[in-house]
Amino acid sequence: MKRTLNLFFMLTLVVSFSAMAMSPRVVPGFYVEWPNHNGIPTMLEVGNRLECIHSPFQKIELYQTTQFGTMMVIDDVIMLTQRDNAGYHEMAAHVPLIAHPNPKKVLVVGGGDGGTITQVLKHSSVREVVLCEIDQTVIDLSKKYFPEFAPSFDNPRVTIVVEDAAHYIKTQKDQFDVICVDSTDPFGPGEALFTEEFYKDIAAALTEDGIAVTQSESMFLYTDLIAKLYAYNRAMFAYASYYYTVVPTYPGGTIGFSFCSKKHNPFDHIDAQRIAALGALDYYNEGMHRASFQLPQFLIDRLVTG
Amino acid sequence: MKRTLNLFFMLTLVVSFSAMAMSPRVVPGFYVEWPNHNGIPTMLEVGNRLECIHSPFQKIELYQTTQFGTMMVIDDVIMLTQRDNAGYHEMAAHVPLIAHPNPKKVLVVGGGDGGTITQVLKHSSVREVVLCEIDQTVIDLSKKYFPEFAPSFDNPRVTIVVEDAAHYIKTQKDQFDVICVDSTDPFGPGEALFTEEFYKDIAAALTEDGIAVTQSESMFLYTDLIAKLYAYNRAMFAYASYYYTVVPTYPGGTIGFSFCSKKHNPFDHIDAQRIAALGALDYYNEGMHRASFQLPQFLIDRLVTG
Repeated sequence: MKRTLNLFFMLTLVVSFSAMAMSPRVVPGFYVEWPNHNGIPTMLEVGNRLECIHSPFQKIELYQTTQFGTMMVIDDVIMLTQRDNAGYHEMAAHVPLIAHPNPKKVLVVGGGDGGTITQVLKHSSVREVVLCEIDQTVIDLSKKYFPEFAPSFDNPRVTIVVEDAAHYIKTQKDQFDVICVDSTDPFGPGEALFTEEFYKDIAAALTEDGIAVTQSESMFLYTDLIAKLYAYNRAMFAYASYYYTVVPTYPGGTIGFSFCSKKHNPFDHIDAQRIAALGALDYYNEGMHRASFQLPQFLIDRLVTG
Repeated sequence: MKRTLNLFFMLTLVVSFSAMAMSPRVVPGFYVEWPNHNGIPTMLEVGNRLECIHSPFQKIELYQTTQFGTMMVIDDVIMLTQRDNAGYHEMAAHVPLIAHPNPKKVLVVGGGDGGTITQVLKHSSVREVVLCEIDQTVIDLSKKYFPEFAPSFDNPRVTIVVEDAAHYIKTQKDQFDVICVDSTDPFGPGEALFTEEFYKDIAAALTEDGIAVTQSESMFLYTDLIAKLYAYNRAMFAYASYYYTVVPTYPGGTIGFSFCSKKHNPFDHIDAQRIAALGALDYYNEGMHRASFQLPQFLIDRLVTG
């Protein structure tokens, strides 16, 4: 009997080991972001996986992390955590909105988690926010798992358009004072949001003094992409720049935005009273607004050489 | 015979599996920094381990990474990689040296890899650099694996003192225009470099208009430590601040320094000609010097409340 049990036990172990051997990258107790890791995958300590849903567009997962609150992952890429998303969402919204002297109508592309519209709504000048998100499932799951953003979806100033943003934006001309492109990476459904055509459509959808900012990845890991986007924007906008923010759970710990502006430079309309009226913030302030456009020398050199 | 082979094979697997079960955190092809990970360990794709030496003070490893060049690890903590160390070493050296109008004598504490003294030596005003490193083995391995820093150790302006910096600095009074503390984490041999006593000794070792900067960890993951060091420094120096830099292979992607100055604020002596004379740099420039002192709102709030 003992021998039989031992054999059974060994067989179980062999099966377990084979499963591990086929997925040697599974680290018990940790979520690891493998795709496009550029040699430095992001690794986060997690407890339970709360959801895993395959929508018509993508795989959406929610995890409970041990030290970063709830985390959303789309197609195996970390989108946000409760603890450190402010560096992303505040910088995505407040930099272009404060750079604009009087933003009234704002488009948020992607951003179905609600984090960016939550920041946009803090600006009293804004009368209308359109959220264009391709995937209703992202919105539904965000409402459930990020209660701090949930009320924004029902705010009377917000219109939700569930549509492919690359198509939607072609129908909009001279409409928006500010556009925030809160996209995923330039692979899969998000790929169209990194093309020159999309930037032309953004320019057409903006008012004559409009400002757009677009998620443009890490300056260390995506230097070539940033240089490509900068080349588009330099030809299309009066002011084109890159600015960055620190988000520990993004690859290499930073992420940045392309700043595309038809008339206003990033600093000419900074108004301390408007910033104070936003209320308590976690990351953004006037100093960070200015500092975020100061780039390391290697990136300046790269943008100059193209 | 077949049955015997199968059993033998299974036994081998069981032994392998047991080994993995005892080290579930070993990910083939990757180095993972586990100690003090704060929920977000750093993970780096590596090829060979080039060395593993136990010195009298610590364990020192060298790895070939796939995308970040050679990496040094001390006591299981990543010290530097060839690819991204500039953000650390340039900001450790040039911020205090440019903030000082005429730095002649400089002490580098720790920093046995040679990266910081290599940057310090770019300043023509500097006549003498003392490198105080507790562990000769770090210096020897750096000379072998980081050839870009190796010549600095033999520079006639450099004096190497192989000694515990906490002891050495007690023997120095009114000696140094600038002190750069390029330490490991506040655990093990580096712990003494994070005490109030050490900061008092730094103040005594500086000249009357001296500036010290000390490695002070990530603003996201070590907020309490930064607040503690800031409380020491605010009481001891005319100017106390924290500034940060981006280094993807450090925990959470950033690291910062305490800026401790007896007389000069960080910006009053910035001289574009002196910066240009440093030659080609990878990270530091005047914009980054100024921007690095702009902190996210959560850290400002924390430093104010103490």
